[in-house]
Amino acid sequence: MSGKKLRVGIIGAGRIGRVHAESLAFRLPEAEIVAITDINGEAAQALAARCGIPRVAASIDEILGDKSIAAVLICTSTDTHADLIVRAAKAGKHIFCEKPIALELAKIDSALAAVKAAGVQLQVGFNRRFDSNFLRVRQAVASGEIGKPNLMHIISRDPAPPPMTFVRTSGGIFRDMMIHDFDMARYLMGEEVEEIYAAGGVLVEPAFKAEDDLDTAFVVLHFKSGAIGTIDNSRKAVFGYDQRVEILGSKGKIASENRFPNEVVVSGEKSVYTDLPLNFFMQRYTESFTLELQLFVQAVLEGKQTPVTGPDARVPVVMALAARKSYDEHRPVKLTEISS
Amino acid sequence: MSGKKLRVGIIGAGRIGRVHAESLAFRLPEAEIVAITDINGEAAQALAARCGIPRVAASIDEILGDKSIAAVLICTSTDTHADLIVRAAKAGKHIFCEKPIALELAKIDSALAAVKAAGVQLQVGFNRRFDSNFLRVRQAVASGEIGKPNLMHIISRDPAPPPMTFVRTSGGIFRDMMIHDFDMARYLMGEEVEEIYAAGGVLVEPAFKAEDDLDTAFVVLHFKSGAIGTIDNSRKAVFGYDQRVEILGSKGKIASENRFPNEVVVSGEKSVYTDLPLNFFMQRYTESFTLELQLFVQAVLEGKQTPVTGPDARVPVVMALAARKSYDEHRPVKLTEISS
Amino acid sequence: MSGKKLRVGIIGAGRIGRVHAESLAFRLPEAEIVAITDINGEAAQALAARCGIPRVAASIDEILGDKSIAAVLICTSTDTHADLIVRAAKAGKHIFCEKPIALELAKIDSALAAVKAAGVQLQVGFNRRFDSNFLRVRQAVASGEIGKPNLMHIISRDPAPPPMTFVRTSGGIFRDMMIHDFDMARYLMGEEVEEIYAAGGVLVEPAFKAEDDLDTAFVVLHFKSGAIGTIDNSRKAVFGYDQRVEILGSKGKIASENRFPNEVVVSGEKSVYTDLPLNFFMQRYTESFTLELQLFVQAVLEGKQTPVTGPDARVPVVMALAARKSYDEHRPVKLTEISS
Amino acid sequence: MSGKKLRVGIIGAGRIGRVHAESLAFRLPEAEIVAITDINGEAAQALAARCGIPRVAASIDEILGDKSIAAVLICTSTDTHADLIVRAAKAGKHIFCEKPIALELAKIDSALAAVKAAGVQLQVGFNRRFDSNFLRVRQAVASGEIGKPNLMHIISRDPAPPPMTFVRTSGGIFRDMMIHDFDMARYLMGEEVEEIYAAGGVLVEPAFKAEDDLDTAFVVLHFKSGAIGTIDNSRKAVFGYDQRVEILGSKGKIASENRFPNEVVVSGEKSVYTDLPLNFFMQRYTESFTLELQLFVQAVLEGKQTPVTGPDARVPVVMALAARKSYDEHRPVKLTEISS
Repeated sequence: MSGKKLRVGIIGAGRIGRVHAESLAFRLPEAEIVAITDINGEAAQALAARCGIPRVAASIDEILGDKSIAAVLICTSTDTHADLIVRAAKAGKHIFCEKPIALELAKIDSALAAVKAAGVQLQVGFNRRFDSNFLRVRQAVASGEIGKPNLMHIISRDPAPPPMTFVRTSGGIFRDMMIHDFDMARYLMGEEVEEIYAAGGVLVEPAFKAEDDLDTAFVVLHFKSGAIGTIDNSRKAVFGYDQRVEILGSKGKIASENRFPNEVVVSGEKSVYTDLPLNFFMQRYTESFTLELQLFVQAVLEGKQTPVTGPDARVPVVMALAARKSYDEHRPVKLTEISS
Repeated sequence: MSGKKLRVGIIGAGRIGRVHAESLAFRLPEAEIVAITDINGEAAQALAARCGIPRVAASIDEILGDKSIAAVLICTSTDTHADLIVRAAKAGKHIFCEKPIALELAKIDSALAAVKAAGVQLQVGFNRRFDSNFLRVRQAVASGEIGKPNLMHIISRDPAPPPMTFVRTSGGIFRDMMIHDFDMARYLMGEEVEEIYAAGGVLVEPAFKAEDDLDTAFVVLHFKSGAIGTIDNSRKAVFGYDQRVEILGSKGKIASENRFPNEVVVSGEKSVYTDLPLNFFMQRYTESFTLELQLFVQAVLEGKQTPVTGPDARVPVVMALAARKSYDEHRPVKLTEISS
Repeated sequence: MSGKKLRVGIIGAGRIGRVHAESLAFRLPEAEIVAITDINGEAAQALAARCGIPRVAASIDEILGDKSIAAVLICTSTDTHADLIVRAAKAGKHIFCEKPIALELAKIDSALAAVKAAGVQLQVGFNRRFDSNFLRVRQAVASGEIGKPNLMHIISRDPAPPPMTFVRTSGGIFRDMMIHDFDMARYLMGEEVEEIYAAGGVLVEPAFKAEDDLDTAFVVLHFKSGAIGTIDNSRKAVFGYDQRVEILGSKGKIASENRFPNEVVVSGEKSVYTDLPLNFFMQRYTESFTLELQLFVQAVLEGKQTPVTGPDARVPVVMALAARKSYDEHRPVKLTEISS
Repeated sequence: MSGKKLRVGIIGAGRIGRVHAESLAFRLPEAEIVAITDINGEAAQALAARCGIPRVAASIDEILGDKSIAAVLICTSTDTHADLIVRAAKAGKHIFCEKPIALELAKIDSALAAVKAAGVQLQVGFNRRFDSNFLRVRQAVASGEIGKPNLMHIISRDPAPPPMTFVRTSGGIFRDMMIHDFDMARYLMGEEVEEIYAAGGVLVEPAFKAEDDLDTAFVVLHFKSGAIGTIDNSRKAVFGYDQRVEILGSKGKIASENRFPNEVVVSGEKSVYTDLPLNFFMQRYTESFTLELQLFVQAVLEGKQTPVTGPDARVPVVMALAARKSYDEHRPVKLTEISS
């Protein structure tokens, strides 16, 4: 089996880089991490030690120049993604890149063009597609189990706002947070959105106002088939990570609940209660991070298309831009207004 | 206790008239049905026999002219409500009237003016307020149990579309069906809506198109506090009556589920399953019909304000008109555009 | 329909008498309460006023002597049941009697003999059979939905112990409390028990010791088919009335949960919680009290067998005696040791 | 960190050996598998390749003779456990051994004596203690969250019977299957059992009769405090692995449900349903297998007591023997009858 192992280089040893490195090292025998690099050399060293990565590269170029490396994982900050994709593509590497590729469409288009020109594979890190709940929902829609989907509601709320330093460079709630849900909407419904109406406000953390950002956002999605979808984002759900979806179809309804740390119910003197749901994405989506990488590795090894493609990387950004425009202009906005 | 009984006349012996007659006759000893009338004399006779009502009146005037009758229940078709309210008010009767008073604001205003002039009590039949689930949700908001409410979602779906003959005179989905949810939105949140954005379509029953009506409707409600609400209406949920609400507040979330005929779960060879939820409003809201009448009777006997007042009767119609306007013009519409 | 009304006399105006009187007066138009009597005349007067009962009889004999009365409800204390059944049967009345008929088999046998001799109908108040949950479980067993039932567990716990004055004359936990569950076991499984092993103790309220009674009791039931059943009784479940059953069959499992006052879930900062289940039998079994009477009235009017027959009245007492004997002798006891 | 790694040898490369090897190789960086052996050399080779184990030892002696190995995992068939423990203890290895150590007490006692004499650590594979549900239940009892525990019910059912060839050498349902639940009972309640009453039968698979074994077993446990516990075992639950527990305490109840592959609910035209629970122990108890090894590794590295000790290995076998004796003699049996 060793002959078929995918040789991988990792760029970025931060939080998400660590998640992916551990998946590759401990769960995915069909991949082998050859080298890792980070502008913070100590972080790269520590992760290499933990995951048995034989080499800490001094630079990104060192990784891109290593002919033995077939694929790279781009786990750096968002503003570097597009440029690194271009460089990696030119170096002939297959690419797994964290979402989003960029906050501006021009940059995304350049990156996608480079990928196409190089003929390499690209997968973007929309990990939620690989959560067992959303996979089951998607399967129900795709198989016709609930008939034609007509109304879809996504709830996606964080337990607490991120630091304002993060908010400042995040691109705003639509491009930073709701981007995952835009992808989920297209994926679950299996069709495209034509128009978006956005609402929102600063309802839970006044500091967002100074950043011209929102802590609460809500959009109505008009799908091409006439189906209606919604996404409900809040930066603060005191009980923990709130990640649910439900779809009403012509033959039934499907709904996914949050995931909890256990299945235990206590009946006390004042209430019947359970522990809180899993607190944040690291706990909730653990398995999805592994599965997305497994499918990436498999797609590259077998020369097949990855499960999250170029348009999958681009369309959610178009949707985010339309949503923000809708919010600013207080009217429904067609996606063709953003990108024809 | 007999000295304190409220003497009631019932106008209309159809489906809802029967529900109210049975509540009064069998559940509410503090009320006494004196007479009933209906344009269908046989229906009135049958209901009188069933509920022990001593007299079937030959006309509405006979009931309004009976000095011994203190209150009337108006259970006729919607187009007669406003006129009957005016006549009953002039006759000095306290009034319980089914929703809505009228489909046009001018008629509602005339009716409310007559009520005010006569100094009688009026309650409109927004029975869902008295469902044990929605009472509990309201209590959580009012008591601060979930903090300030920021995001509210109402799901309200019928098991199957009504006959097209009904649809034709119903006033459309916003005024016929969503009117209950408009009331619920104001009631649960304890605040007013400023602006509405509506979407919808004919997604489940093509016959609605010929009536210029929708079978699926969705609105975004912009509350004065900045909170955002939604209402999701469908004329067809194949699994039964789908009546839920959830609110995210600054200190927690509250959500109500559907009601089921039993609490039994079967684990079979292919799935773990339960029976379907209660099928329609007669099953689901049984207790609320009794409770709303009980509170009406009590309010009249004690000379207190009824729990569903004049503005409660009018505002949902304003909201319904704004919603339809928003749908037609495909833009958010302020309630002040409908009625300042 | 008035010609077919069942004319009923009620003996006993205590708590359960009131429940039955209200069901007959307000829910069951096919019955008519002719008279009521109680050793406490004021209680009888008050109930008559509330339920519109035209006559308060001065004595039981007055009721039994009224030729216009076709059926009596015996709602007095347990020690009087058997004797009243005999008297009512001799007077030719059909009989609805609260459980148990007596605490001793000889008395029960005399009563059943009198019923048989008189050719009247008898129904015993095992109301739980008519609860929507237990009806659904029974239906699943009877229809083969879960295959052959092999393991059955009944949980039946009160929210708090009764007063010790009640405990003293109750006949003990097996005859007073578990008697309902013995009936349920036979009813749900549709077969008879051969042998019982009992365990128990005074675990929650030390005062039971002085009464030679238990506050916690547990039995294993050996059914004739080889199936195994259990009953778990506690006089104290701090969260409320705990009434559940589950059965494992060869083709599946069926389980019923407690009933709650609403279907609302709150997600707070420390837990996800609901209100407590319905507190006690009056709330939980409301509908079953009405349904059992409805079926009694119907059976008598139509001359059919009532749904809870003579053996249904006797066997649970045999089981209770076997259970106590098993507890005392610390060994499994066959029912034939009690009554061949 | 490499200096603190626990060097481990694995004896047995069957199903459970593979589970443990993968945990050590992919999840537990603080351990290092030095060598593996199995009488089936190919199985050992394949597992070594998969998990990156550098050496396949030709014999158990080779592993026990390797001075660099500090601990061994005994993952062979039950009949070899006791002897291997003795040999490993004499070789000075810390020992993790699958349950049970032996089916006869004398063998267990010899093994425990050898462990004691050698001063090595021993942990027995009662993995369910480390399941997140049972950990939560144990915590509730230990912390007083539900007060004093008085009634405990364990449900533990397999999806389908094992092959009869396995049944023949398994030691019977009490020693093979219920042994886990006997451990769980002591662990969750935090106290010892004094007496056991057992019932059971061949209810789902007639082939068990020829093996003088049962496919359905039920025991009542009399705890020293007076608390009552039960265990319900069936070899066949058609809907999947049924692993639940509930405890009624003086201040509340705690109950754990099965674990499901997702949190998705579908409302269809005939029922509201979910997928079946996780099918068997490999899926349900995945995380517990890792956690038990992690705690073993940690205990050995830190020289602390392992979380499952000598008595934990012995008492469940005493209970199993008492249960079988109770079943055979059809009477409650004290544990002191088996081992004083």
